[in-house]
Formats: sequence, structure tokens, C-alpha cells
Amino acid sequence: MRDLRKGGWDVYGYNRSPRTVAAAQRGGFDVSGDLAATLQRAEQDRALVVIGVPVPALPVMLEAIATHAPTVGFTDVSSVKVEVHDLVEQAGLTDRFVGGHPMAGTANSGWDATLSGLFDSAVWVITYDNAKTVGDPGAELWLDTWRRTIQLAEAVGAAVVPTVARRHDAAVARVSHLPHVLAEALAVTGDVGGPLALTLAAGSFRDGTRVAGTEPALVRAMCENNRAALVKALDETLALLHQAREDIAAQEQDIHRLATEGHAARMRFEARAGRSSKDTPHRPVIRVQPGAPGWVEQLNSAESMGAQIGIF
Amino acid sequence: MRDLRKGGWDVYGYNRSPRTVAAAQRGGFDVSGDLAATLQRAEQDRALVVIGVPVPALPVMLEAIATHAPTVGFTDVSSVKVEVHDLVEQAGLTDRFVGGHPMAGTANSGWDATLSGLFDSAVWVITYDNAKTVGDPGAELWLDTWRRTIQLAEAVGAAVVPTVARRHDAAVARVSHLPHVLAEALAVTGDVGGPLALTLAAGSFRDGTRVAGTEPALVRAMCENNRAALVKALDETLALLHQAREDIAAQEQDIHRLATEGHAARMRFEARAGRSSKDTPHRPVIRVQPGAPGWVEQLNSAESMGAQIGIF
Repeated sequence: MRDLRKGGWDVYGYNRSPRTVAAAQRGGFDVSGDLAATLQRAEQDRALVVIGVPVPALPVMLEAIATHAPTVGFTDVSSVKVEVHDLVEQAGLTDRFVGGHPMAGTANSGWDATLSGLFDSAVWVITYDNAKTVGDPGAELWLDTWRRTIQLAEAVGAAVVPTVARRHDAAVARVSHLPHVLAEALAVTGDVGGPLALTLAAGSFRDGTRVAGTEPALVRAMCENNRAALVKALDETLALLHQAREDIAAQEQDIHRLATEGHAARMRFEARAGRSSKDTPHRPVIRVQPGAPGWVEQLNSAESMGAQIGIF
Repeated sequence: MRDLRKGGWDVYGYNRSPRTVAAAQRGGFDVSGDLAATLQRAEQDRALVVIGVPVPALPVMLEAIATHAPTVGFTDVSSVKVEVHDLVEQAGLTDRFVGGHPMAGTANSGWDATLSGLFDSAVWVITYDNAKTVGDPGAELWLDTWRRTIQLAEAVGAAVVPTVARRHDAAVARVSHLPHVLAEALAVTGDVGGPLALTLAAGSFRDGTRVAGTEPALVRAMCENNRAALVKALDETLALLHQAREDIAAQEQDIHRLATEGHAARMRFEARAGRSSKDTPHRPVIRVQPGAPGWVEQLNSAESMGAQIGIF
């Protein structure tokens, strides 16, 4: 809301917490505690609705949208996408839904935790599982929702990357959920070493355990909603660690293999992250025309490169 | 050398690389490429010798010390201590050796990589495996070496923590070597996700893989020289990860257990790290009198608390 208003957008919202509503209103924002009224107003305005609730709260929210905003498009910002798409389909709302996942956030919540510029240069994933092409039934509403979701992400400075839900969930299991599980295990193993180990701990332990500082409930929610993909990623890591364990114990010095592969992988990540940093504004962008013949193939191709897209 | 000279110490050195010697000399430092002459000078001056070579180069260096500096004390700065103590014992030099491990460094080497202030507020481990008490044969030289090693560490701003070699190696396996192995495995697993996964990778992956950027040869050297302790720590982590994997797969939501324990462990680390940061100069210090009756029990007690020591 902060960044959109700064960008000149007409933005208003609903929150179930009276404290949050009061704090937002004191900050001069147009926020209400009446869900039905807010959704009716969105329907009236032909607004794009953005849902930002935990996955377990989604069914109730989808029902409210079906009832009070029966014809406008909507998107979400959840960190998993398969389960969200399934719930949207069960609610019969697929034709006007585009999934979203801004890859930015903090461990804090509530109005006081809001901040400007959070999404600047961040990746904002947008799903295209239910993509329509001009001429398909309902294409106009869905394509309008897709365009407006991209405009929303771009308005707050994010880089839009298209994926299908399943591949999004597989990717974040590897690069977001797995790091949390490893950090927890490292924190516990270090702690078992007692005061001496914690005194000797320096940078490698500090960095390796940082996300173990995340609220346990948030970590649990991540893992619960992406079980299959996380188990697959964790099994791969376990296989690598078992091999390393055997190599170290067998005195074959073959930890060299994992160390070499790990080093090369980190270098590829750094090269890639460098390209998408604020310091390098010339990120390659693939331009697509939503709904044009062949556009889904373009999205597939952008996804396979992890490329940013823009719209004509 | 930089920090000791700044502190008014008379410091000179040897390096086997002519380029490093020339660079140090250009910087105004008293550095030679003649090992025998440098050790003879140290013997003449009753200097404290500080060895800073990789473990595989240690036997040759110990032989040179036995030959050219036959009666002065020496210490080292290696990241493992059991193997170093074993090699020193094999060389018959135990009576004038105190093991050291400053917990600070960078991934770089050579004269250009030297920097002032590297050890400021860092922990500097000093071993007491072969501690002597006043009256023991050879106590004077060994106790003098111990005092001077502590003075050296304190002169560059470090906090001295006493350990025996075996417990040092067990602790660094948990908080230094294990984090490297986990970072390598995470980097590889993320990379297998391809361009999309690397594009979606943000802070948790960046921090969790940072030390995978370490030169593979250095990681290999760490693991090689601390096999038994690293395998034990790795086995504990593997057990935690297997349990988490089963809990996630079984939909019992028991990742909550690991997340809760990991969070608590990280909080304990942060509380501890906070006490030893530059911001909190009032770190508790246990003062010992080297060689006094009962002083080894004092060191045991300091070690079990991971406490800093000072000398009367």
C-alpha cells in the first residue's frame, strides 16, 4: 500500500485486526475492518484484489470473494503456489486468478512491520498455469488480471518472473525451504557442543544458522504447505551428505568432490545474483504480448531461463 | 606482524615465497627468505616463534626449529590441534610448545591479503594439553611460552580461550567445519534446480551457501585434518535431518520440533555472541596464575564455560 500510493495508485484495504486497521488509518491509509464492504467496493471499482493471508485462511477469503466480488480478477502473495491453485480451483475461481509470490519479506508482522521499498529489485513470481489465449472463453478477464498483476509488481520495483505452480514450488523448496531446515539442524548440532563450541563459533556458523532465528511457526507453515517438493530436495541433500560422510570417514579425501561442486554452484549463483542486483540495471527482459498466439511457449522459455518478463 | 609492530613489538619473519618476502620488505617489514638464519636469530634473541604453515608442511618446519632454534618456545595458528600436538610430540618438542588457533581469517593468502585489526575481538584458542606446574621439569620454559603466547594474542586485541586439543577439534568440527559441508550440499542442491531456482534464490540461500565460496582445497584440508570429530558432528546432523524428513513426509507436522529446537539454539548463540562483541566490552575474564598449584583445574573450568582467561 505504501509503495503503490507513492506511485499514484488508488489503493485501499481490509484487515481483520482492529489494531492494524486503526494503525493504518492513523497513517492516513484507506483501510477498513469490513470485509464484505471492502470487496463490494472493489467489485464496484473493477479493482484488482490482492489476497495476503496464510494458506489456512484462504478458503474463507475465497468464499468472500465469490460472494462479494463476483466478477473482478484477483491475485495472491503466498509462498507456495500448488496448494493455492488447488484451493482456487475448488472454489471455482480459476478463470479470474493469477498466482503471485514476491520473493521478499521480513520475519515481522502487523502494521508497524510495513516498510517502503521492500520489493525494490526483488523477484515477483507470477503463475501462468491457467493461461488463456485471445479467443478462449473468459480470456478478456483473465488476461486483464494478468496484465494488472504485472503492473502491480512493476509499480513497486519488482522483476516479474513467470512460472507454473509446480515448478515454482520445486524451486523454492530447494532455495528457500531447504535452507531453513539445514539452518535448524546446524544450530542444534552446534549447540550440543555447549558453551565452548558457541564461544568458538564465528562467521560460518553465524551465516549458516541465521534463518534458524525465524519464528518456528513460520518454518512449520512453509514446510507443511510444500511437503512433496521439500522432501525431494531434502533427499538429494541427504544423499550428498551421506556420500561426503563416507568419503571423509574412508580417508579417501573425496570431500574434494563435494567441495568442488559446491564451490562451482555458489559461483554460478553469485554470477546470476550479480546480474539481478540493483547495481546492474541492464537485466535482460523478454517482452510478451499477453494472449497472443504462441505466448504460452514464450512464457515456458522465459521460465526455463529464470528470465524476467515485461509486457508490450 | 602489522598489529604487533603497531603495538611496539620487535617482530621479524620468514616466508618461503620470494614474492611475499619482497612485498613485505617493500612494506618496511623485517622479513627474510632464509629459514635457518631467521630461526638462529630467534634463538639468539630468546624470541617466541609463531608457525603459520599448513599442517602438511609442519614436520619440515618442526625439524628446522629443532635444528636452528633448539631452546626457545613456539606456538602455531593451525585450525586443528590434535594432529599438530601429535606431530610436535613426534618431533620431541612438546616441552616448549603451546598450541594456538585464532578464530579469524579470510579466504585469501599472500602478503597483499594481510590486514590490520583482523584479530580484534576475535577468540584466540590456546591449548593446555601439556601444561606444567611450577616445580615440574622444564616448567620455566613452558610457562614462559604460555605467558608470551597469551601476551601475543592480547597484543592484537584477541580474547584468549583455553582448551585441550581434543575438545577444540570437537568444537570446531561442529561450528566451523560442519557449516562448510552443509553449505556445499545446499549450493549443489539449489544449483540442480537450474536457472529458475537460482533466480528465485534470496537471502536464506545466499547466507546458507556463503562459505561454499571458500577454495575447495581449503575445505578439503579442514576436513582431512579433523576427520573423526567432523564425522561425529555430521552424523548428528544427519540424524536430525532424517527425522525431519520423516516428520515432513508423514504429515505429522513435527518439523515443529526441529524448528523449535533450532530456534532456541540460535537464540542461545546470539545471546553468547552478543556478550563477546565489540559493543559489550565487559566480557567476564577468569584470571589465572600460570603454573600455580591447581591452575589446570582453573583452565578446565574456564574451558567448560567457554570463558576468556587473563594472566596475573
